[in-house]
Formats: sequence, C-alpha cells, structure tokens
Amino acid sequence: MVQKPAKSPPPYPSRRASESAVAPSSRRTKGAAGDDDTVITALELPGAALTPAMQAYFDKCTEKLGFIPNVLKAYAFDMPKLEAFVAMYNDLMLAPSGLSKLEREMIAVAVSSHNRCYYCLVAHGAAVRSLGDDPVLGELMVMNYRAARLDRRQRAMLDFAVKLTAKPWEIEEADRNALREAGFSDRDIWDIAAVAGFFNMSNRIASATDMRPNSAYHG
Amino acid sequence: MVQKPAKSPPPYPSRRASESAVAPSSRRTKGAAGDDDTVITALELPGAALTPAMQAYFDKCTEKLGFIPNVLKAYAFDMPKLEAFVAMYNDLMLAPSGLSKLEREMIAVAVSSHNRCYYCLVAHGAAVRSLGDDPVLGELMVMNYRAARLDRRQRAMLDFAVKLTAKPWEIEEADRNALREAGFSDRDIWDIAAVAGFFNMSNRIASATDMRPNSAYHG
Amino acid sequence: MVQKPAKSPPPYPSRRASESAVAPSSRRTKGAAGDDDTVITALELPGAALTPAMQAYFDKCTEKLGFIPNVLKAYAFDMPKLEAFVAMYNDLMLAPSGLSKLEREMIAVAVSSHNRCYYCLVAHGAAVRSLGDDPVLGELMVMNYRAARLDRRQRAMLDFAVKLTAKPWEIEEADRNALREAGFSDRDIWDIAAVAGFFNMSNRIASATDMRPNSAYHG
Amino acid sequence: MVQKPAKSPPPYPSRRASESAVAPSSRRTKGAAGDDDTVITALELPGAALTPAMQAYFDKCTEKLGFIPNVLKAYAFDMPKLEAFVAMYNDLMLAPSGLSKLEREMIAVAVSSHNRCYYCLVAHGAAVRSLGDDPVLGELMVMNYRAARLDRRQRAMLDFAVKLTAKPWEIEEADRNALREAGFSDRDIWDIAAVAGFFNMSNRIASATDMRPNSAYHG
Amino acid sequence: MVQKPAKSPPPYPSRRASESAVAPSSRRTKGAAGDDDTVITALELPGAALTPAMQAYFDKCTEKLGFIPNVLKAYAFDMPKLEAFVAMYNDLMLAPSGLSKLEREMIAVAVSSHNRCYYCLVAHGAAVRSLGDDPVLGELMVMNYRAARLDRRQRAMLDFAVKLTAKPWEIEEADRNALREAGFSDRDIWDIAAVAGFFNMSNRIASATDMRPNSAYHG
Amino acid sequence: MVQKPAKSPPPYPSRRASESAVAPSSRRTKGAAGDDDTVITALELPGAALTPAMQAYFDKCTEKLGFIPNVLKAYAFDMPKLEAFVAMYNDLMLAPSGLSKLEREMIAVAVSSHNRCYYCLVAHGAAVRSLGDDPVLGELMVMNYRAARLDRRQRAMLDFAVKLTAKPWEIEEADRNALREAGFSDRDIWDIAAVAGFFNMSNRIASATDMRPNSAYHG
Repeated sequence: MVQKPAKSPPPYPSRRASESAVAPSSRRTKGAAGDDDTVITALELPGAALTPAMQAYFDKCTEKLGFIPNVLKAYAFDMPKLEAFVAMYNDLMLAPSGLSKLEREMIAVAVSSHNRCYYCLVAHGAAVRSLGDDPVLGELMVMNYRAARLDRRQRAMLDFAVKLTAKPWEIEEADRNALREAGFSDRDIWDIAAVAGFFNMSNRIASATDMRPNSAYHG
Repeated sequence: MVQKPAKSPPPYPSRRASESAVAPSSRRTKGAAGDDDTVITALELPGAALTPAMQAYFDKCTEKLGFIPNVLKAYAFDMPKLEAFVAMYNDLMLAPSGLSKLEREMIAVAVSSHNRCYYCLVAHGAAVRSLGDDPVLGELMVMNYRAARLDRRQRAMLDFAVKLTAKPWEIEEADRNALREAGFSDRDIWDIAAVAGFFNMSNRIASATDMRPNSAYHG
Repeated sequence: MVQKPAKSPPPYPSRRASESAVAPSSRRTKGAAGDDDTVITALELPGAALTPAMQAYFDKCTEKLGFIPNVLKAYAFDMPKLEAFVAMYNDLMLAPSGLSKLEREMIAVAVSSHNRCYYCLVAHGAAVRSLGDDPVLGELMVMNYRAARLDRRQRAMLDFAVKLTAKPWEIEEADRNALREAGFSDRDIWDIAAVAGFFNMSNRIASATDMRPNSAYHG
Repeated sequence: MVQKPAKSPPPYPSRRASESAVAPSSRRTKGAAGDDDTVITALELPGAALTPAMQAYFDKCTEKLGFIPNVLKAYAFDMPKLEAFVAMYNDLMLAPSGLSKLEREMIAVAVSSHNRCYYCLVAHGAAVRSLGDDPVLGELMVMNYRAARLDRRQRAMLDFAVKLTAKPWEIEEADRNALREAGFSDRDIWDIAAVAGFFNMSNRIASATDMRPNSAYHG
Repeated sequence: MVQKPAKSPPPYPSRRASESAVAPSSRRTKGAAGDDDTVITALELPGAALTPAMQAYFDKCTEKLGFIPNVLKAYAFDMPKLEAFVAMYNDLMLAPSGLSKLEREMIAVAVSSHNRCYYCLVAHGAAVRSLGDDPVLGELMVMNYRAARLDRRQRAMLDFAVKLTAKPWEIEEADRNALREAGFSDRDIWDIAAVAGFFNMSNRIASATDMRPNSAYHG
Repeated sequence: MVQKPAKSPPPYPSRRASESAVAPSSRRTKGAAGDDDTVITALELPGAALTPAMQAYFDKCTEKLGFIPNVLKAYAFDMPKLEAFVAMYNDLMLAPSGLSKLEREMIAVAVSSHNRCYYCLVAHGAAVRSLGDDPVLGELMVMNYRAARLDRRQRAMLDFAVKLTAKPWEIEEADRNALREAGFSDRDIWDIAAVAGFFNMSNRIASATDMRPNSAYHG
C-alpha cells in the first residue's frame, strides 16, 4: 500500500498493516515470529497514499537499507502521523548531538530491554551492531547493560536512561548531577532524556500493536 | 529568548530555559513549586531564535491561552525539536479521531498519574477540567482513575493505557480484544496507544528536566 | 441517620452508609465521582444512634466546616468504632506535637498519594491548601512530593513516611538517624511514624469501602 | 515507668521505652533479637504516668498474660495515644463480629507477613497458635497463607486483606463481591478491611520504631 | 515406595508422591497444612526403586533424624534426579566452607523468606534452631532478617544473598566488594552465591509442586 | 588450570577463574564483554586438578563443541561442586523427558531473560538457535517470550516457568491445572519446575560471579 504514488489512493482495503510491493531481502517461512514481512501489526489499518516527501523517504530507505522498516509501514495509514514520527525520529537519532549515534542507539536498546519490546530490540540491536566495532555490544544492551564493560560516561548515561524508564518519578537533581560529573553538558542531558523518552513511547506503540520487525534485521 | 524574530539570534546566553518577554497571567511568590514562570527546567539551555512558524504558534498560544505553555519554552532551545514536538502533539491531541479530545486528555492524565509527573498532571489535569462538564473528573484522573464512575468504554480505554504504561511487555491480543469489545475500532486502538505512548515520553522528559508548569494552570 | 439523638434508634434500614439530614454545602449532579453526598461507601451498613459525645462532635463539624466529613458518617454504623477513630484521629492530627498541623497533613497526603486513595487525597489535599499559605503545596503533595521545593527537614520527614509506606520492612536505624540529623527528636519520629501509619490504615479502609469525599471538598 | 500510680510522675528520664518493674516470665541472654524485655523500641521516649484506666488495663494484662505486651509499653509515653490505641485494638479484635477472633488474628498475621513486621508476626503468630486448635496454622499464616488448606470463606478473606495491603488502589467492587459470594455480609467486609487496615498501621509503627516482642511470646 | 530394595520395583502405582513404610515421629490430624506425612506434593509420581546408595542414605536419615525429609521422598520417583540433588545439597550445606553450617542455613532461610516457600521455611527454620544457640534466630530469619541483631559479617552475607534473590541483574562488583570488606574471601563469595542460588532453585521446586514439610519439623 | 591431569595439582595460584590451555575457537579483542576467554568470573579461585571423570567430560566438550563452556571452568576450582553441577545439568537438560531438549532450552532462556542473566542468555540462546529450526525463536525467548507465536502447550509451559521465576509464592493448583489442560503430565510439570528452578539457581551464580560466556557463543 505505502509504495503507491501520492495521487492514487490504494484501491484495496488492506488487511492488517501490510507490505505488498517491497520485496523483503530474505523471506522466511512462518515461525515463532509470525510472518514479519507481511503482517506488520495486529491492527487492520487501511493504508494511506504516501505524500511525495514520504514517498521519497521510503525510496531512500529501500535504496540504503534494502527494505522499509516496518515501523514506517505501520505508521503509513496516516500521513501526518508518519511525518511527525519521521521528523522526531530523525532529529533525535541523526541530528548533531553531544551523544554519538552509537550512544543514542545504546540508549534505545537499553530502554527497550527494560520494556522488553521485541520490535525495538531487534531493530535497534541491529543498529548497535552496525554502528559499533564491538560485535557483542548490541547483545549486552539487549540482555543487561550492567554486564557490559563501559566507561564511566556511557555507564552513567545508561543508568540515567534506565532509571528514567523504570521510575521517572524518582529522578532528581542528584541524577542530573551524576551526568554532569560524568562529563555531560545540560544539552547532552536533554538529549539522553529525549532519546530515552522517545523509546518509552515507541516501545509502547510497538507492544500495543504487536509490531513485528522486518525479517531482514535477523540477517 | 523565544520571542525574538527568527533572523536575529539571541544575543545572550540564557541561564536555564526561561521566559523573559511573555508576562505570566498571574505571578506568584516563590513557594513549594519554585518559581514556575521564570525557571522552567533544571537545565541551562541557551534559547534559539523562533522560526516564523513557531513564532506564529507562540503568538497563537498567547492569544488563546494568555500564556505559552512551559513545555514549549523548554523545547525552544532548538527549532527542529520544537517543531517535531508541536507537530506530533497537535496531531495526537487535536486531529480528528474516534477518541474525543476529552478522552485523549483523560488518557494523558491517567498515564501521567502512574508516572507521577508533576508538569503533565498540572497542565493536563487543567485540560480535563476545561474540556469536561464534570469538575471532579480531572481530580479523579490525577488521583486514581479506578475510583471514577466511568462507562465501560472509557474504563476499558484507561485500563489499556495504564497497563501499557506499567507493563508494556504484557500487552497481548486479549488486551486489544477487550478494547474491541468495548466498541473501539483498530484505528481507535492505535490512537489510545499513541496518546499513552506520547505521554510516557513527555512524562519522562518533564521528570528528567524537572519541568515546572506555568503558574497560570493553578488558576 | 447519624444525626438522631442517642435514645431514638434509626427507624429505617439505610441503604448504603448515607446522609439524610445534613444538607451538603454544594449539591452536584452525579458525575464521575458518583453522588458523593448521598452514597458514601459501597457497603450497606444500617446507621446507629449517635452517642451524646458523637452527636456533639458532629454538631461541631457542621458548625465549623459546614458539613460532616463522610469518613465520620461511614463509621457511624457503630459507636465504639466511631469513637475510637475520632479519638485517635484528633490526637494524631490536632494534639501538640513537634510537627506542625500542616506537616502532619503533608504526611497524610504524601502517604495517600503513594496508596492512590481518592477519599484521603481529596479531603487532606484540601487541608493542606487550607493550612498552608502556598496554594500549590497541596497539589505537589498529591502529585509527587519529590517535585516540591521543600527544606531539608520536611523532605526528610516525607522520605521517611513514604518509605515506611512502600517498604516498611526496610526501615532501619539509618532511616531514623536521617530524621535525627534533619532535626527531629525521637518523639517527633514517633509522630511521623504514627501519622504515616494512621493513613496507611485509613487509605485502606477508604479503598476497601469505596469511600467518597464530600462534594464540599471540591469547593 | 508504666507501673507507677497515675499521680506520681516518673522520677527518672528513661532511656528507650523500657520496662523496669514487671519481671518478664522468661529472661533470655541477649541474642539476635536483642534484649526484647528491656529495650522495647529504638526511640528514647520518657515514660508517662499511667492513668487509672491504663493502670487497671496493665494490671489485667499482667494477671492474664503474665506480662504486658511491649506495644503497650511503647505507647505508654503518652496516655491519650495509649488509650486511643487500646480502645481501637480491643474493639477490632475482641468486640462481637461476624469474624471469629481466630479469623481476625489470621488477618493480622497474613497482613504482617506481607509487611514482614517482626513484632506483629511474633505476637499475633502466638495468638493464632493459642486461639486455634491447629498448631501449624500460625506458621502457615507467617510463611505464606496461600499454602494453607483453608475453606473458601477464609481464603477469600485473606485474599482480600492481602490485596488491600499490597495494592489498595486496585480494590474494586469485584473484590467486595468475591467476599459476598464467599458468605460475608457488608458488615463483615468492613471488619475485614478494618482489621487489615489496623495492622497496616501497627506494622508500620512497629517497623518505624524497631519494636521488639516480649521474650515470653517465644515460649 | 522409596524404602524398597533396589532390585524389586514398586508393585503399585502410587497416588501422589507418598510415604508408606516410614512411620512419622508424630502423626497429626489433618489441619491447615494438609496431611504432610502422607501427601507430600501435588503431583502424582510413581515411586522408583531406591538405588543401594540412596537406600543407605534414607536409612541414615531415619537413624539420625527419625524420619526422611519429604523433599527426598518427593525426588525419589527418579534415581538420577534424587542422587544429583543429594550430592549437590550435601556438598553445599555440609562440606567444609568458610561459612559455618549455621550461616549456610541462615542464608537458606532468608532466601526462602523472600520467596515465601513454606516447605523450606519450615525445614530450614528448624535447622537454624537446631544449629544455633539462640532460639529466636530462626524466627528472625523467617520473618525479616533485617530485624535481627547480626554482626557486620553476617548482615553483609544476608544482604548479598537476598539482593541476589530479589534482583540478580543488579549484582555488581560493588556488591562483591561489600562482602570482601566484611571479611569474606572470594571462595566464601562463591559459597554464599551457591547456597543462595540453590535455595532459589529448591524454593521454586517446592512451590511448583506444593511440597509439604514433614510434620516432625513442627515439633 | 582445568586441563591438568588429575594427579598433578596445579602448581600456580591462578588469578581469576581462567582458561590457559584450551584455545578458544575465535579470539576477540577486548570489548564491552571484557575478555570472555581469559577472565571467566570476577572471583579469584585457584583451579583444582580435574578428576578423571571430569577430565573426560572436558575432553568431550572440546571434541564436540570446540571449547569448554565457561560455566564448567568456573566450577572447576572444586571437583565435588563441578561433578554435582554436571550431574544435575545433564540429567535435567539431556535425560529422557516429556519435554523436548528444545523446550527445556526455551525454558532456560525465558527464565534467564526474566533474571537478565548475560551468561545464560548467551549460552542458552545459542542452544535454542542450534536445536530449533526457527532462527528467530532464540531471539524471541531472549527478548520477550510473549511476543513469540507459540502453540498453546509451549505458551502454557513458559507462562508457568516465568511465573514460578517471578512470584513463586503465588503458584497454586490452578497453575498446575493450566499445564495439565495444555497436555502436560504430572511428570512433565516436575520437569518444567526443575528446569525453571535450575536456571533460577544458575542465573544467580552467574550474576553473583559476573560469569562471562565463551566468545565462541557469539559466533
């Protein structure tokens, strides 16, 4: 559905948010994950026509990744929602920041591990593997970030992000100061909070809709 | 800072996200809440020049509310972040939906109550009071939504939103079916999840930065 | 029922603990709170005749508050229970103590917030508003006492009361010493514990019986 | 201190709530429990002169039990507090009720087990052993009431009391109806709630003050 | 069943893991504990013939204790399982170690208290009573080890064991160092972990099967 | 250390449980996992001489796996402990059972996921991948077993194992009956409990000692 040009509305009522035209890079037979490439969420949401901007973005995904991340296809039933999600995601994860892209993905995975979000753990665990030079780091973020050998800065960053996830009501100035003492600026603190906050949102949307990661993430 | 035209950058490094030009509708002496109208967060973030779109939006807030919500001033250190937040917020809370605006605010407050987020409880508790015709409803959402006399639909909606907040890893098809049986469409389920997810993000950004609500909310 | 002289027993079997003779200061139509002024609890308990002492006490409530707090009407099915509750409550909250009346109400609300007790949050939130000169303090106690700007003494007091509420089994000498270091005497520690303990009792009786606060508290 | 006639005030500043004149039925050397018969709480509270009513009550305890329960000695620094506690306790645990005295003690112990209150588990575990004809029942209440072979009525009673202890904010009409279906009247529901509530108070006062049970309870 | 010589298989299908030939030292009528001496678990598992080694071990139990602990009878449906359990148990609890036998039993009970395991609390509470010279120590371990007057070493040992039970994912080098500072060697740390781990296993097998302690433990 | 013949004791005090003679199949530079192949635990335990049986077992591991699992090297400081562990492990995971080997590994991983045990998740996640024909199943067990598409039998099995892990005190006959209704025999229930119990032990020993998985598991 989502691959149609903006002017021609989808001619069919889709059953479940689904992908029809984009061939996944690897097809799997249906197993414990279900069929991640054709049934993307548990909700039946008729696809909307992509706006030109979103069409261009989807094309870019296909070109660079070889597939369109299922979260984008899940949002593609409504263009304002898709565009707002893409704008916020890209700013948070890709714009200049005192946090490296790898660090932002580490937060994403540590938060998603606390929330046990299957979609986000698969997709962002893959990102940690791809951005880092340490093949085990993604696994550690998925399983228990406390078991990783991290420098003080990254450990403080993840401790803050996970406490903010688990008990946001107990975050106080002492927690912010722990970040400052580990070398983070106030702007960095915002970014840690914003990335942790964003995945607390995404984890819940993915869990609420039973979102399935693209099979391509599994390699 | 936020009131400057987009072209002239702010000439001063601000101390803490702060408001300088917009007079709050009611000034309070400093009490247990701190000084909500001049110190907005615990982070020192130099203000950015508002883009024309954001300047227009802030003007509209001032015109319609009499003040600019502090969450917007807190985000105003960076225009892409502010614009993404505003776009997502306005779509979620104001765009057409099977959920009424009051219902979306009820979710906002019930989620914020679970997370004990001072900023969001004050700001959105006020919204429930202003949108509903029942003056006690906002108080019930803040204190314990289970104590409210709600119809089956609204109770199912809040049960889902709060479970999704507390234990997102335990949401399954049975939970979605409980919503369907209460009369919600799959699109409605998305909207419930998206609003609940959004406040799980906002609650954490507010708690991480010790965001203070405008004194005007307290009436 | 509860306003009858002691010698004449109530001539009717009441349905639910209810108020018949005392006109509430403000009548509301039935909303999300139910009808707080006529259905006080979820239990049907026939009213007992007030003893002269309790009649005098109820008269004093009516004179000073304009209404009889629903918790008293709820207990009025049995005079020994009502009298024991009133004696303990008045000693704890009103007798001389190293804690001010406002501080005791702050403990009441912070404990009731942890326990999410609708009745106690409404009634004692109103007390904090009425005793304090800071209109926002009651709201902060209801929402998250950690967000309030408190001096060290009051913060230590509430930290102890809330830990005692959440994990009484982990209270140890170090917790008592934190109070002593914040300036509290051993007698003060007893009073903090006794007020926190009392509201852990009251919160549960109110929740167990779905006790509704008088509509007058909502102002 | 507490054994002095009401008119003569205690001539000494006591160190810790302590017993001086009443010989414990069995003296133990100091072990893991500390010296339960001379150091009763961790707070130093000068003893008050007993009122005649309380002197008579203490005399009755000595006569019937062979000792004065330490909780009474702990409260004896202030007569209004002691009298209010005694009045409420005796009404709840000894006055006529649809719950047997054994059932009320079972609630006391199951609640105290959830709260892991050493004082109350020792004192009321002993009461269950003394009131019941099943020597193992007290042990089961202390360790895990769910492991006991109880009839449906008593199981429903304890399930309600323990849920009310653990998550009072989740008690709703369905919970009350489960009691009604197990044969309890609305008055019985009040009594279950009141006993459970009372021990949620007492557990916290005992934990907050490190109250030690009389060595006599250990037999 | 379990008392048969290894060569003759049991001629009957047993109903529930049960004891037939070994007379309990004290028979009780059936009460809240059920009939601990004839119905040992909730599972019907046909008994296996004891191997000579296990027969000898059971004989030794009968000789030294006067009865065969029910946990052994529960495992006796399968000789490799029984033998592995016995080998591990005896090594952990009886082999030379920097921890005394009493200390190992204290860990057993503190862990079982966290897990509220009826079987293990009864059986190992009895062991603490029998190994220690302080009759109250077992009760304190069952109820709340934090209330016991322990030296720094034993307190550190139990804090580690109970944290490892409650939140194993949060154990880090600082926790191990707290043990080292309390005087424990690395080998001792292993032993603390191994005993705590073992009872986290046994507690779950006992709870999963509703294992009942021998009535003899109750004295 | 562990590769020495049984008769010659290790001539050196080892620093940390370490491997010296067995070359790992793939050496990694030190990253977030530390150096899993040379520092196996955080404890310094001098190696013991392998008994002939254990030497044979280690040889068999090397032959079949290409390496000796680090958990075995960690236990190799003491032969009775190593032998008891190996005996219990092999019986539970490899002996005939109504549960397939894959099902037993699924329990291992779901339990280890609840306990966030890095060692066990890596080692047994690899086992699920190797035993199953569905490459994603191991990932689902690590991340959130509830997201897997399982048949009723396996779902019931994991629900029981995870509840037994999280709240063993709440397991009752209804939980066992849910397994029976899903087709499990009483013997199968024992095996589910025993495997879940075993990993609740192993997870804690691994977390207590900061055990690191062999780098070979990461492929």
